[in-house]
Amino acid sequence: MASLPEPIVSLIAALGKVPGIGPRSAERIALHLVQAETQSVRQLAQTILTARDRIQTCQICGALTERQPCVICSDPLRDGSLICLVERPVDIISIEKSSSYRGRYHVLGGKISPLNGIGPEDLRIAELEARLANEPITELILALGTDVEGDATSFYLAKQLTAKGVKITRIAHGLPAGSGLEFVDELTLSRALEGRREIQ
Amino acid sequence: MASLPEPIVSLIAALGKVPGIGPRSAERIALHLVQAETQSVRQLAQTILTARDRIQTCQICGALTERQPCVICSDPLRDGSLICLVERPVDIISIEKSSSYRGRYHVLGGKISPLNGIGPEDLRIAELEARLANEPITELILALGTDVEGDATSFYLAKQLTAKGVKITRIAHGLPAGSGLEFVDELTLSRALEGRREIQ
Repeated sequence: MASLPEPIVSLIAALGKVPGIGPRSAERIALHLVQAETQSVRQLAQTILTARDRIQTCQICGALTERQPCVICSDPLRDGSLICLVERPVDIISIEKSSSYRGRYHVLGGKISPLNGIGPEDLRIAELEARLANEPITELILALGTDVEGDATSFYLAKQLTAKGVKITRIAHGLPAGSGLEFVDELTLSRALEGRREIQ
Repeated sequence: MASLPEPIVSLIAALGKVPGIGPRSAERIALHLVQAETQSVRQLAQTILTARDRIQTCQICGALTERQPCVICSDPLRDGSLICLVERPVDIISIEKSSSYRGRYHVLGGKISPLNGIGPEDLRIAELEARLANEPITELILALGTDVEGDATSFYLAKQLTAKGVKITRIAHGLPAGSGLEFVDELTLSRALEGRREIQ
């Protein structure tokens, strides 16, 4: 049996490692790319490299941005007394799409997960504490997912930060259990933000 | 509302143009790539370029290959009296996986489709006629899809090539109607090859 030429096999393997591309898709995409116009393939590779080179994380909040600080951190019309804590940069986009929040953000960079070896020291908690100390922040809104690890992280932070003199709230449980922010529609997110309650 | 940085928007658009990547996947893949390790992203881009640069179509049969002629055309153990005509290079891989064919191949490059402006002159029919004239071919197996255009193309070729003194057969209608070769399991393909019949 003749097998696939090695460069195609390598390409299928490389594409298969990207989250969001399954094995069947990887094969289909690879076979398309090796047969597509050379110019358009070069352009795609270049677009990937350009995006990776130009996108950084904001040094203040951790959002994806082309400039320092990001557009949200540098927008004087944003309410600097409100910080919304999210797990990943993508979550900021989900909340922005709901158009129901005018404060700033902080990206935690993950959730506490002992099983995966992720402890509080692996997250951007020290950066958050520095911001709470130095910025005129009056309310910290926890907007992590509602799975077990998201819950545990929220309670850990509520306990940890309660002495900072900042009101700590959590977005309402309008989110379906076990889900992340990106699977939720804009209305649900909007309601979850409106219905936030202070953690006792 | 803050929108996505431009390089990410461009990347989502570029990825969305690739068949096999939907709009939702394009967003997910793009956001992964701009946050992934720079080195691994460079490697992916390079793998794409390498595959595109090194893969050509075989000058004899039209298969995807790294060398000229391809491994199948240059394999002396392959039965040179049998040619299997397929629509696309990918279809060769499907048939090879079924391990039920030991002849050679010819890639037609498409199907006759007046609605899409594809006529016989746009396909590799002249190349096929040259091979029938110059190689010791005794049987041509038509292995195109079973949709309307595949049927029409098969009958056109059977009529066109009948004077060449070559037996023309078609793989059995074991394939589900309206489907392409890549959606068929290996056993079905195997049976379809075994059950081929001469076109009257």
